[in-house]
Formats: sequence, C-alpha cells, structure tokens
Amino acid sequence: MAKLAENRYGKSRVRLVKVTRGEVAHEVRDWNVNIAFEGDYESCFVAGDNSRVLPTDTMKNTVYSLARDSAAGSVEEFARELVEHFLIAAAAASTVSVEIAEKRWAHVLVDGQAHPTTFEQRDLAIQTTAVRGSRQGESRVVSGVKNLIILKTANSAFEGFVRDRLTTLPESSDRLFGTELTATWAYAAGPLDYPALRAQITGTLLTAFAEHRSLSVQHTLFAMGEAVLAVAGSVVEMNLSMPNRHCLLVNLAPFGQNNPNEIFVPIDEPHGSIEARIVR
Amino acid sequence: MAKLAENRYGKSRVRLVKVTRGEVAHEVRDWNVNIAFEGDYESCFVAGDNSRVLPTDTMKNTVYSLARDSAAGSVEEFARELVEHFLIAAAAASTVSVEIAEKRWAHVLVDGQAHPTTFEQRDLAIQTTAVRGSRQGESRVVSGVKNLIILKTANSAFEGFVRDRLTTLPESSDRLFGTELTATWAYAAGPLDYPALRAQITGTLLTAFAEHRSLSVQHTLFAMGEAVLAVAGSVVEMNLSMPNRHCLLVNLAPFGQNNPNEIFVPIDEPHGSIEARIVR
Amino acid sequence: MAKLAENRYGKSRVRLVKVTRGEVAHEVRDWNVNIAFEGDYESCFVAGDNSRVLPTDTMKNTVYSLARDSAAGSVEEFARELVEHFLIAAAAASTVSVEIAEKRWAHVLVDGQAHPTTFEQRDLAIQTTAVRGSRQGESRVVSGVKNLIILKTANSAFEGFVRDRLTTLPESSDRLFGTELTATWAYAAGPLDYPALRAQITGTLLTAFAEHRSLSVQHTLFAMGEAVLAVAGSVVEMNLSMPNRHCLLVNLAPFGQNNPNEIFVPIDEPHGSIEARIVR
Amino acid sequence: MAKLAENRYGKSRVRLVKVTRGEVAHEVRDWNVNIAFEGDYESCFVAGDNSRVLPTDTMKNTVYSLARDSAAGSVEEFARELVEHFLIAAAAASTVSVEIAEKRWAHVLVDGQAHPTTFEQRDLAIQTTAVRGSRQGESRVVSGVKNLIILKTANSAFEGFVRDRLTTLPESSDRLFGTELTATWAYAAGPLDYPALRAQITGTLLTAFAEHRSLSVQHTLFAMGEAVLAVAGSVVEMNLSMPNRHCLLVNLAPFGQNNPNEIFVPIDEPHGSIEARIVR
Repeated sequence: MAKLAENRYGKSRVRLVKVTRGEVAHEVRDWNVNIAFEGDYESCFVAGDNSRVLPTDTMKNTVYSLARDSAAGSVEEFARELVEHFLIAAAAASTVSVEIAEKRWAHVLVDGQAHPTTFEQRDLAIQTTAVRGSRQGESRVVSGVKNLIILKTANSAFEGFVRDRLTTLPESSDRLFGTELTATWAYAAGPLDYPALRAQITGTLLTAFAEHRSLSVQHTLFAMGEAVLAVAGSVVEMNLSMPNRHCLLVNLAPFGQNNPNEIFVPIDEPHGSIEARIVR
Repeated sequence: MAKLAENRYGKSRVRLVKVTRGEVAHEVRDWNVNIAFEGDYESCFVAGDNSRVLPTDTMKNTVYSLARDSAAGSVEEFARELVEHFLIAAAAASTVSVEIAEKRWAHVLVDGQAHPTTFEQRDLAIQTTAVRGSRQGESRVVSGVKNLIILKTANSAFEGFVRDRLTTLPESSDRLFGTELTATWAYAAGPLDYPALRAQITGTLLTAFAEHRSLSVQHTLFAMGEAVLAVAGSVVEMNLSMPNRHCLLVNLAPFGQNNPNEIFVPIDEPHGSIEARIVR
Repeated sequence: MAKLAENRYGKSRVRLVKVTRGEVAHEVRDWNVNIAFEGDYESCFVAGDNSRVLPTDTMKNTVYSLARDSAAGSVEEFARELVEHFLIAAAAASTVSVEIAEKRWAHVLVDGQAHPTTFEQRDLAIQTTAVRGSRQGESRVVSGVKNLIILKTANSAFEGFVRDRLTTLPESSDRLFGTELTATWAYAAGPLDYPALRAQITGTLLTAFAEHRSLSVQHTLFAMGEAVLAVAGSVVEMNLSMPNRHCLLVNLAPFGQNNPNEIFVPIDEPHGSIEARIVR
Repeated sequence: MAKLAENRYGKSRVRLVKVTRGEVAHEVRDWNVNIAFEGDYESCFVAGDNSRVLPTDTMKNTVYSLARDSAAGSVEEFARELVEHFLIAAAAASTVSVEIAEKRWAHVLVDGQAHPTTFEQRDLAIQTTAVRGSRQGESRVVSGVKNLIILKTANSAFEGFVRDRLTTLPESSDRLFGTELTATWAYAAGPLDYPALRAQITGTLLTAFAEHRSLSVQHTLFAMGEAVLAVAGSVVEMNLSMPNRHCLLVNLAPFGQNNPNEIFVPIDEPHGSIEARIVR
C-alpha cells in the first residue's frame, strides 16, 4: 500500500520584466520566479481531487498582478509579498516557498554618462533569494548570488595532502584558483535593508577571496564565510559552494620551452566540488 | 566566531568510457561519476591543514584505475566498489557518496542486424545511481532515471480546481500532458539484480503513465509511484519529479479556423513543478 | 556613405506540436520552424519605412494557421507550403527560406505493444530540412540530420600523418572514432518521397560509417557521402560535418596497470572539426 | 562517381588562459581558439592518405607553444601569428583560418581599488576575431562582439507595417526593444591598433543604439552600422545580427488593472531575426 510521504507543487521559471519609468530615467528589473506549495494535497495525489488545488497557472498570473501593484525594491521584498499573498489564497498550503533570481541591467554609458533609457545586461552573476513562509512564525529569507566567476592568480597553494598509490598530483605552492561561486546566506528576522546587506556581503566575499593566502579551496571558502559572519550581524548562516575550476599548467618541455606559471588550459570537467555551511 | 557546521568535498563530472571487447561484439559503457566525502575535515577548512585530505585529483585517478580491474556490470555495482574503496583510502571520511549517470549506446543496425563494433547514442534518457556508504551499516543505493521525456495525448484532464480572482485557466477534460520525468527509487539492502530491476521499474513507470486516466499531474505521478511499489518488492521508496511541460492550444479563431485539440505551442517556461516522495 | 549590401529578416524558433487523432492511434509531430525573407527592404532599413514589411509575428501566426489546414506528412512538404504561401503574402520578398527541425516522438511500448496515445521522445538526433524558394524557378530542398552521435570501436586508425617539431600525437592503428554527425543533402527537383529518401539516406550513412575501414575521419566522411550519392539518385550533393569527439586512452602505467584500449576519457573540447561537400 | 567539392579540417575549442605576471599586477587572457585549414587534401578524403595532414592535435599544441613566445596583446595579433605559422607548417593548406573568442576578466575591486591578482569574469559579451590568410595577399581580419545583450525602454516603435488576414500584431508607438547583438566588422589591411578600434566601434554601436529613434529593428540596425562606418575609417564592412528578444506586455485587464508599459513577459522563443551587411 503506497502512501504520500512528502509533496510539493508549483510554477517555475515565471519570467518578469518590470520597467519603472521615472522622470529622469527608467529602471529595469528582470526576475525569474519559482513558486512552490507544500501542504495537505493528499486527496489530489491519491484520488485526483483538485478541489484544494490552486492552479499553477494562477500562480503565474499572481506574479504579474502583484508586480503591478507592488512597491518592492528588492527581490526579497517581492518574494515576501508573494509568500504572504499565497498563504491567504491557498488554504491547503501549509508552506509557501518563493525563489527569485535576478539578472541585473545597467545603464549603457554614452560619452561617460548613464543613458536614461538604454540598458546592458552586464553581469554574469545572478542575484538570488528564497523566502519560505508557513502559517506559524515569520518567513525565513535566504538570499545569495550564483554564477560569480572569480580567479586568483597569486596566493594559492595546495600542499601536504594525503598521498596514496593512486595519487599523482604534484604539490603546488603557486597555482591558479578559479571558481564559480554559489553563496547563500540566511537572514535573521526582518525587515532588513536587503539591498544594502547584499552589497556588503558580496563585497566582503570578494575581498576575502582576494586577500586570503589560500592553502586550499576549503581554507578560502571558510575564510570567506567567516568574514561575512564577522561583519554582517543579521546573517545567521552561510552556505558556500566553490567548485574548483581547474586551470592545468601546460607542459611545454617537449617543445623546448619552459612554462613559468603562464600558459594554462582551463577545463570544465572534471572539477573539484567544495561546499560547506558555516554558522556562528 | 564562525564554526563549520557541515562540509562536503569531492570530484564531479569524471567521465569514463569503457570498451569491453568480446569475441563476437564490443560493448560500450559511458559513465559520468561524481564523488563526495563528508567527515572530519575541520582542520582543513579552518586552518588550511591538508594532512587528512585525499586530493580530488586522486579520486579521479581512482575511477579509472578501478574501472580497469572492475567486473561491475551496472552503475550500481561500480558505485558500490568506489564507495568501499574510498572508505578505506580516506580515513577522515565518515561518509562517501558516489553518483553515476549513464548514457546508453546501442549497436547500430546494419541490414537489420546489430553491428558488433558500431554504436549510436540513441536515448535521451539518462540512467542514474547514487550510493552512499558510511563506516556503520550497509550502503544505501538510490537509482533512477532522468531526462525521460514523455507525452500523453489522451486521458488527461484538469478540472474542479480552486478558482480565485486571479484564475483565468479554463477547465479541460482533454489536454496534452507532457513531462520530463526524473525518478529515483531507494533499494532495500542488496545485493540485487540492479539491471533487471531497472528495466522492470522503468517499464512499470511508462506503463502506468500510459494507462492512467489522469485527473492531474499529481494524480498520475502518485499512480506511477504506487505501481512501482506494487511490483518491485525491493524498492522501499519512490521520488518522482514531473514538471508540467505545457503545450498551449493555439487560438485559431482570428483566422476563421477551429482547433479541435490539434495545433499546440509547446513552451519551456514557465512550467508546472510537481514532485512527491511515495513510501509503503 | 553607408549602403545596405544584404539583408534578411524573419522569425526563428516557432515551435509547433501537431496531434493527428486517428481512429486507432494518435500521431505527434514536433517541429521548430525558422522563416527568413530576403528582398527589397532597403527603405525599412534606411528610412524606417515599414510599408513593405510583413511582421515576423504574422510569420508565426501563419505557421499555426497553415498547419491546421495542411496535409503535409513531412517537414519538406510543410516547408514547401510555407515558402509558397509567403512568396504570395510578402510581395517585397524575393527569396523565402524555411527551415524545420523535427524531434521525433515514438509510441511508448506497453507489454511490447505500441500504446496508441502515449509517446516518448527517444531520439537524440534531429531531422532537418531547409527549403528556399524564389520567384523564379523551383524551390531548392536541402534536408538533413543533426546531433546523430555515433562511435566506432574498431576499424579506425590514424597513421602516416605529417610530423613537425610540435607534433606529439602517437600514431594509432586502433582508436575510438566518435562523432556528432551533421549531414545535409540537396535534393534534385521534386516532388519526391521525402520520408522514404530520408530513411534510405540515414541508413546508408550509418551503414557506411559502420563498415568503413577508417584511415582518418576525412576518409570515412568521404566514404559516407559517396555511399549516399551511389544509392540515392535524387541527391545532388552531400554536406557532412564530423567533429572528432576524442576519447583519450588513460595512462594507467603509474598505477601498475596496462590499458589495452579499454579505459578512455571522453572530452568535449578541444575537438577536431572535419567537413566537406561532396558532389557527383 | 563522387567528387570532393570543398573541404575543411581543423581543431575547435582550444582553450587557453595566459597569465602575464607584471611587477605591479597580473593580467589574464582567456581565449578560445578555432583553427581550420582548406587546401589540397583530396588524397586524404578519397584514399585515406594522411601524408599531407598535419594532425589537429598539433594545431592544439601550436596554440600553447606560440602563446608562450608571443607578445601579442590582442586576439587579432595572436590570430595573425597563428595564421602565419600554419601557412608555413602546413604545406598543403591553401587557406588558414583562425577564430578567437575572448572572455574578459576584470580586476576585482577591494575598497574601490583594483586588486592586482584577483579577477572576476564580469562581461557577458564575448570579443571575437576571425583571421583568414592564404598564400597570396594579406590576411583578412574580421573582428566582432557577440552575446551583447541590450535593451531600449524608450524611443522604439513599430507601426505602418503590412497587414494580411493572418496579422494580429497591434501597432506600437512605444515598445521595449531588446536584442542580443552579434556584430562583426571587416578591417582594411593592417597593422592597426585593434584594441583601440574595438573600443571605439563597440562604443559607437552602443551609443547609436541608445540615441536612435527606432522605427523598427531594421532601422536601428542600419543606423548602428552606418555610425561605425562614419567614424572608423579602417572598417570596410559591418555585419549585424539583432534577434528581436520580445518582451510581451502582460494583459492585466482580467484582474481589473491597467498596464501602462510596465509589466512584461520576456520570451526566448520565438524571436525575430534581423540581419544585414552594410558597406560603404
């Protein structure tokens, strides 16, 4: 006899561009929204009874309708508004989760001046938030950044590791250290100034990455998380994932050339995977 | 003061092609391996002490070296071998996880006969396994399939759902139901005949999908999981994820045409997301 | 003074699913259509005069409206219908090009029988056509296949090549030969039985690939093209692109193991690129 | 009887990271190189004779060996060096083409200062060049940019177009105009200051896009090409491709809301495709 243990349904990849037309300049927000409900939906799964199911199509409509009326200036605020709305609209949902991924558009520079109504999508990095609310207690806000591609060309070593009979990796006191950072941070109860915190946290992560004398990816990852917890009192937890995007030193000896850490082959696979959760 | 709460490191996307050269025909296995260790690595993260760290490069070497000696005929068996090896090789690891994704190669047909040494990568679907072992107890094997793209053109309805003021979706007694199935199933303690079970489970999932009179994606998802649990006694749990890849009926009325469920626009985004865990 | 030398405009990635509901079974066609016009559009580019411009949105509508009325059983026939329509609808277009890429859906097998209304997208390979018509003469039909991923594990060598001081590649009398075939073939004037020809040509390509004693990718590519021209009288020209998807033999000597052409690392980059046009 | 009409072989996706270690700061170049030869290779294709074939593996080695010795400061110069090398190394090649795509790395800012040895891959846009050289005459250099994603929120209209019975698109005097620009420009004979020209041309394209009162994508595309030809005397030809990445205005009327050009759904498909070649 089969039983429903956990369930989750929702709408993913709801894309929204919102243009705010100020007197002097326009602003563009480009958001990709995922919505998920958990709750008492057993009759739907087991018996095909849809009487408690708010359609995912309605979730999509709700994103657009609320966006029109919303004054939210950050992904965190808009996600909170959506969570609050759905906790009312969906009686059967015990938990509502809303994730938003933001692509940033910057004003194009014309003669050194920001053009008011022309934009360039300049950042590879994606700004994220995930807000999860239930009928009891406050919503939990976990923000982050992903696809932040960074590289250290100095102050990175990897030495003194375990060697077994299958180990061929040479020790290195000076290697390239590249990664595609995914970071998330859990906020204490709000409301908070999310955009200011995001800027501070991202800046702290980058500074710690730049200034660290790295003995391993793990070592730098922890230092980065530690740095954020040291400066941002409203962050209660950091999750960092730092795949090691290897740059392999090319052996030029067959061609009679040396290679003093200058010529590398970057490879996408295989890659190291390093991740940790860091708390106070 | 920052503390390491959880950590995980390993090597991802280790790709392996193994050619078995039989007397009559060759066989090709094409595997993509991810390895992850959890354990007592705090000194590495906090202090840059690598003396307990087996390099991820060694994990990669191990895949190739073990593959040469292995007689494993399934991803499950090879993942188990890797887990057992690493629990010995990595003294600091308390848990070792190995995931393998397999792309299948089929013999090319020449005049209706399987050519012995020529292959075509025919399946979109990817076969997966994840084996997790610790120093206590037996390894847990969770196998699955992903990227299995299926479609019902009959016996699919979605009616009787909640309507709020933002609901515009019409009820439908006959809609297309397309999904990209991701399924995983947890096995009871082994050893088991994993290839035979995989074939049985995949066949059962497809049959249940085909024969179900669907009242919603949720309804069919549950029926599929239930069907597997009914026939495969060694499966203890099913996880199913079935995004609703919508095919929208095109409105041809502006052109003076009707559209009796014939002409659709498939869209990739937004899409419904339905998932559940089903147990006995 | 700037001048318009060439121009082209159209609609790309118009996706269409057409369900044909027969008495016994349904059939599904899944097409992705690109449309492009060339012609006398200088006033639009130079002066912003849209009076000769049929909107690309209308091109999209046309795909759906014509699909409803069309009896076309192949991408070639439907592309021809679209070309003919647009040459009338778009007076300023001197040339109309329509490309269609087809993903194939197969009936799911239930107890060994094809289920009439349930489908699986099984093929990685994509079937293509490109029809180009102008106001003079007949349309030219160039069909093809792409993403056909094939591998030879025997009868492939690469020896006797040029060696300069930067050459380190060893000669190989027995290597893996894998490729992702893209083939296009130009048909003589129609109408022709396009589905039958497609099956014959694809089968001939696979058979030639399987049976060839390959001395290089180039050598096999030519043999494949030659084989098609030998059997398919209505094909006037073959274009073949066969990137060499390398599988590198792993050096297991550091681990005290030999590797008799058994354990390989497949890599996506870099890859060889081999292409040719073959005519009668 | 089959004949080789055209042929081309080479190595694609040769990835190179070159770190220049200056006294004050490092610089990182991240290049992806494609190499192709055309020439007298008929005996290879037809008869499997490899005696004129320089292996594609050697092409890859050559990229790394030349990069070590090269002082090239731009993709154009390095591509020219490779072309010159290969015209000597590959006696059978009549034409050598080298394409390089550059991803830019910027110094990370720490306290507002560029950190000397830490980098962020900030640009989505890719810088390109294609150099084609033959045994007669000078090499032709065609540089460009791709993946430059830009958006106008004002001064974009599309009106006065052809309406047929399948046209439903409303006229719009104020629409969003977003595109993913791919531009290439052919240079007159060199040597030229390629980095300075690249900056000037890219800036001119962005300024023209920003300042244009657009009556259609075609209209703006031409204005952008014209602007470059007007300021950059060493550019002999522009090729511009500007897919129309549609942002659809959401209909909020069913929810009792208006939508004064504020809330949009961006879609990836279908998309308009507009391209032209512009000459003097």
